[in-house]
Amino acid sequence: MTRPKNDTLLRALRREPTPYTPIWIMRQAGRYLPEYNQTRARAGNFLALCRNPDLATEVTLQPLARFPLDAAILFSDILTIPDAMGLGLYFAEGEGPRFERPLREEWEFRDLTAPDPWDHLRYVMDAVAQIRRALNDEVPLLGFAGSPFTLACYMIEGKGSQDFIEIKRLLYARPDLLHKVLELNATAVSAYLNAQIESGAQAVMLFDTWGGALSHAAFHEFSLPYVSSVFERLHRSYDGQMIPRIVFTKGGGLWLERLAQTGADAVGLDWTVDIGSARQRIGGQVALQGNLDPGVLFATPEAVRHEAGKVLQQFGHGAGHVFNLGHGVSQHTPPENVAALVDAVHELSRPYHAT
Amino acid sequence: MTRPKNDTLLRALRREPTPYTPIWIMRQAGRYLPEYNQTRARAGNFLALCRNPDLATEVTLQPLARFPLDAAILFSDILTIPDAMGLGLYFAEGEGPRFERPLREEWEFRDLTAPDPWDHLRYVMDAVAQIRRALNDEVPLLGFAGSPFTLACYMIEGKGSQDFIEIKRLLYARPDLLHKVLELNATAVSAYLNAQIESGAQAVMLFDTWGGALSHAAFHEFSLPYVSSVFERLHRSYDGQMIPRIVFTKGGGLWLERLAQTGADAVGLDWTVDIGSARQRIGGQVALQGNLDPGVLFATPEAVRHEAGKVLQQFGHGAGHVFNLGHGVSQHTPPENVAALVDAVHELSRPYHAT
Repeated sequence: MTRPKNDTLLRALRREPTPYTPIWIMRQAGRYLPEYNQTRARAGNFLALCRNPDLATEVTLQPLARFPLDAAILFSDILTIPDAMGLGLYFAEGEGPRFERPLREEWEFRDLTAPDPWDHLRYVMDAVAQIRRALNDEVPLLGFAGSPFTLACYMIEGKGSQDFIEIKRLLYARPDLLHKVLELNATAVSAYLNAQIESGAQAVMLFDTWGGALSHAAFHEFSLPYVSSVFERLHRSYDGQMIPRIVFTKGGGLWLERLAQTGADAVGLDWTVDIGSARQRIGGQVALQGNLDPGVLFATPEAVRHEAGKVLQQFGHGAGHVFNLGHGVSQHTPPENVAALVDAVHELSRPYHAT
Repeated sequence: MTRPKNDTLLRALRREPTPYTPIWIMRQAGRYLPEYNQTRARAGNFLALCRNPDLATEVTLQPLARFPLDAAILFSDILTIPDAMGLGLYFAEGEGPRFERPLREEWEFRDLTAPDPWDHLRYVMDAVAQIRRALNDEVPLLGFAGSPFTLACYMIEGKGSQDFIEIKRLLYARPDLLHKVLELNATAVSAYLNAQIESGAQAVMLFDTWGGALSHAAFHEFSLPYVSSVFERLHRSYDGQMIPRIVFTKGGGLWLERLAQTGADAVGLDWTVDIGSARQRIGGQVALQGNLDPGVLFATPEAVRHEAGKVLQQFGHGAGHVFNLGHGVSQHTPPENVAALVDAVHELSRPYHAT
């Protein structure tokens, strides 16, 4: 029944008043931080870092030591689930994630089972618990997972993709098989997020990273229902605290109304959306998270401050805004621009919360 | 004053009645066709193919020999303009286009001039004229160019990009310099398209391929006005025929209303947009082009037919639809699925045009 001393994030996600707009940054513990790169080098590689709760805790806390962020987010990867299903996750240097055994044959789809998060993904739960202890209730801890469709993309393509040849072939030629994988993924993701909540995560986010690669009709058939299905099965509250849920579909600006009806408490926006228009469309139902162009962080601290101010102005007065980028922070970002962003948001947002 | 025997494309772009929905396919002359790969091998490389009017004519006609398409599109590349500006276009094998001398220093921006299309881009005009003769007025010929912003991306990044670090840094830190390049590009693109029209292009398309990488506000400042600026300067008609213009912003589904006000006669849609909703939004002002998911073509001919039928049904009855994919056809597409698509569109669309 402990609440964090700084609970602005949790309040904003519930659209309750806060003195300023809270901010966290997608991929805030990452390669743009020299200290992250040092820890990663010590771990050996990215996967070893994810699997070591001590080191995962260390990198999770690094951005909070530098910047007065309003939340921590578990350091991990969305592909831990398919890895635990036995697909053999590895990272080819400079090439992103790959699976040794992507799903190809019909029997491979049939034999797939959802992993027990307390068994094969125990290292994630250990990291959540350890991070939570290390945070000492200063700021809340976010857990996360990939959406069932986004996980299926990697499981079927075997790697990141531009064309999505394999999953699109399956989607249009064998929709029954794809639905089978998505159903299984929804079971796996909801069990995984519930275990994170039981381990100490105080809010959760579902990354529907590749939902935007789908056609309008296919998004509504193959991604959206499985987001709802995950949220339906999540703990609504735990240890006496309501657990807010965030959903983010990159490229999903046309589908905000439906995303707001998935059971999410907040909808993440990429930077192509005008957050003022998004608030008019769905701000009565959910909080909004976003949505500064991550490219702003390549410019100067002055430009960062100016553009952050524009996003705050577009959202306008009142509760229900969690500031973030519209996508993960790039590895090429100068950390001083992140510092400028966090300060600008905290400072420039206060007038919008005055009563 | 010659009109093509099959003028369904030109009629549909003007929202006039046609007996069926015309179809052409973005990148229809390309690597999915074995005969294209043979001609390209004969040329030596992609650029040599673009610069040889005989071979450019040959590959432009190849898809029309296979499929009863309703239009030809000039075989060329959007980067011919910055190449003619002296930036040194080359293609690293398997890596996409690159420039030897991307814009970096302020004096490089200052010294840039718009190329005379009849001089440095003469080879394109020769190809247009030769293709037009070879078509013998069977179907219309489309010309095309990249949008000022899309060209600027390549000119400043020096290559394709995921992060758009250089152009975003410029956009947010030195918007004055970027506007200077965009103004010059608008001049260059309009001169280039007018020369294509004078050489025989019967409609033109502006590819705003990277406009969707911009934030809502930046799109309206850095891409949209320069699209309008190009269209303002184009021949409205030539040789007694009205020259329709198409604009396509990939990822621009949120901005259709503004795209419809650029002076375009038709707006291209990617596959994330529901074409029925798009018609409600802007179908009273412009024709619509699109928008089948190119991924459908990885599946079976039966799936292709089914999904093509869904797009036709979503658009509904009446004039103003040019069928296309929502993006260029992938090199991994089986040609027999393209054949199935063209036949399905011609056959299944007739009931929607019955009076």
